[in-house]
Amino acid sequence: MKQNIMDIDTVALDEENKALVIIDQTKLPGTVELISLTEAKEIWDAIYLLQVRGAPAIGVAAAIGMYVLAARYDTTDVNEFYKMFKRDKEYLDSARPTAVNLSWALNRMDEVCQACIDYKDSVEEIVSTLHNEAITIREEDVEMCRRIGENGLELIKPGDGILTHCNAGKLATVKYGTATAPIYLGQEKGYNLKVFCDETRPLLQGARLTAFELQESGIDTTLICDNMSAMVMKNGWVNAIFVGADRIAANGDAANKIGTSVVAAVAKQYGVPMYVCAPSSTIDMSTASGDDIVIEERKAEEVTEMWYEKRMAPEGVKVFNPAFDVTDHELIAGIVTERGVARPPYSESLAQMFKAE
Amino acid sequence: MKQNIMDIDTVALDEENKALVIIDQTKLPGTVELISLTEAKEIWDAIYLLQVRGAPAIGVAAAIGMYVLAARYDTTDVNEFYKMFKRDKEYLDSARPTAVNLSWALNRMDEVCQACIDYKDSVEEIVSTLHNEAITIREEDVEMCRRIGENGLELIKPGDGILTHCNAGKLATVKYGTATAPIYLGQEKGYNLKVFCDETRPLLQGARLTAFELQESGIDTTLICDNMSAMVMKNGWVNAIFVGADRIAANGDAANKIGTSVVAAVAKQYGVPMYVCAPSSTIDMSTASGDDIVIEERKAEEVTEMWYEKRMAPEGVKVFNPAFDVTDHELIAGIVTERGVARPPYSESLAQMFKAE
Repeated sequence: MKQNIMDIDTVALDEENKALVIIDQTKLPGTVELISLTEAKEIWDAIYLLQVRGAPAIGVAAAIGMYVLAARYDTTDVNEFYKMFKRDKEYLDSARPTAVNLSWALNRMDEVCQACIDYKDSVEEIVSTLHNEAITIREEDVEMCRRIGENGLELIKPGDGILTHCNAGKLATVKYGTATAPIYLGQEKGYNLKVFCDETRPLLQGARLTAFELQESGIDTTLICDNMSAMVMKNGWVNAIFVGADRIAANGDAANKIGTSVVAAVAKQYGVPMYVCAPSSTIDMSTASGDDIVIEERKAEEVTEMWYEKRMAPEGVKVFNPAFDVTDHELIAGIVTERGVARPPYSESLAQMFKAE
Repeated sequence: MKQNIMDIDTVALDEENKALVIIDQTKLPGTVELISLTEAKEIWDAIYLLQVRGAPAIGVAAAIGMYVLAARYDTTDVNEFYKMFKRDKEYLDSARPTAVNLSWALNRMDEVCQACIDYKDSVEEIVSTLHNEAITIREEDVEMCRRIGENGLELIKPGDGILTHCNAGKLATVKYGTATAPIYLGQEKGYNLKVFCDETRPLLQGARLTAFELQESGIDTTLICDNMSAMVMKNGWVNAIFVGADRIAANGDAANKIGTSVVAAVAKQYGVPMYVCAPSSTIDMSTASGDDIVIEERKAEEVTEMWYEKRMAPEGVKVFNPAFDVTDHELIAGIVTERGVARPPYSESLAQMFKAE
């Protein structure tokens, strides 16, 4: 029988077997398959091969993975233990070098490990502390997403139509997602939201992942091609847009999956508010504006060949395939974080958000 | 050896063999194959199976096809001849019932046929007149596109970047296309234009047809996904947008391939002028505004399955798949026809265009 994905966390710790358990996202939407990982190579592969993906989910998987590996080191010598820890940490960190959450989570695990060593803890005590830190990182992710959802939910009302782009969903985090968090919390409260998912070319995360997870959870879900957003907005079917972000500059410019800034321009044309939902850790106050964000370009074959039975574009044609784009802060109605909703002017509201620290 | 598509007309008459010759567009972009058609069933299939597509090209193919069939009727009896003519005309007309140019061209052939009969012409004379009418319809298409190209070319300058959506290209007409006509005429004059082609989901006409025909003609061509248009415009790479139209209302609202109105909203955001290139026959003065244009919805599988090796969206997910959208006249900088360029306010300029008749 098909498993209901809403009953399964994207990333979890199997306490009994000391294993990292993830939904294998490369099998979606055809098959929901949980895989149980205990070896460094398995965990590295899972991150590298995108079996686990989405910045928050990768961070949690790395933290739990690091604990799972450390719990299995066959030594009581702290120096030897830490040598093995550092080796595995560097190895996991190499799976996706540019994923900030990966090194962030691994560094956090390393810091508690080092603190334990400074306190002259035993290997057993260190492993116990690593366990607790991994659980904490995971719980923080769930709590952060839930708060984003609560803050986002105040921006919409029951029966609203929502449009989202790419997958900033449950599958990119442990439980609620970021852009999808208000949708899931609304679902819990009987909001009966109607959600439109951009398929999100070229890699189709909207079709494969977002439409899948929303439909699985019983939410009214309609899949559209990216170029149909104007039609659904013109028809009056969309009351708000929720998207995620990979990096938000101090002025509110937001880098996110390619196509987000197209949705933003269309939303402006049709008077639909666009909200960026992201943890406050995504806001990089040292980046002045979107102009300072370097956009990764990916290989042409993602556009011309991937997914297709035969090549769909002429041989040798040039392809421009940026993975992300930057949405101008002027097009963003609010930035929804776990700390609250920042409103324009962002240079003031975001600075205020971090001043409290 | 690969044939150069720019040396081949999309639709032509093989005088010697009395055959309709078309580029089989279902084989593109992999193979350029000319097929020679002389039987009613072959011609019907070619239209039905989209071996020939694009409103102008279909009209010309139907006219030449009708002549080819009539030239082969084995009778000298005019009544018998006209009975066969009517039978084949109705048959061809059924290939794509909603294609206006198909019935328009067939009706034009029927009218000259009837006029000949009124003049007591012989079968031989009727066939000769049908030949000339088919050639005229074909030449009118070439001339109309060339004039659209000349008028469009005045809106751009050498070295400009152009973005286009879907295929309003050579492959949709006999020779120059409509939206591509300024590009091809610019190419003849050494303009060195740089053209960005939206791939145009779900049916990928931009990737399969436009990128193909432009690249074949030696034009600097870059393929992008539909959701990358904001990025190329923000980068300052696009000076003008040329798109086609399926129907233009009296107020300037233009129905065209789905996604055109997304390009229009993005173009407005980045200050890029958007031009609709179409024959004046596309302007329907009896349609007051875009609200009066009914949009065809197509089957979900075009979005979820077509082209893919495996289904890319969850089973049972709802899909909204409109084939066209309407771009508001406020977003259109000019309507480029063979009669000249209409500028806002269109309710005045379009009325003026037709007043001259």
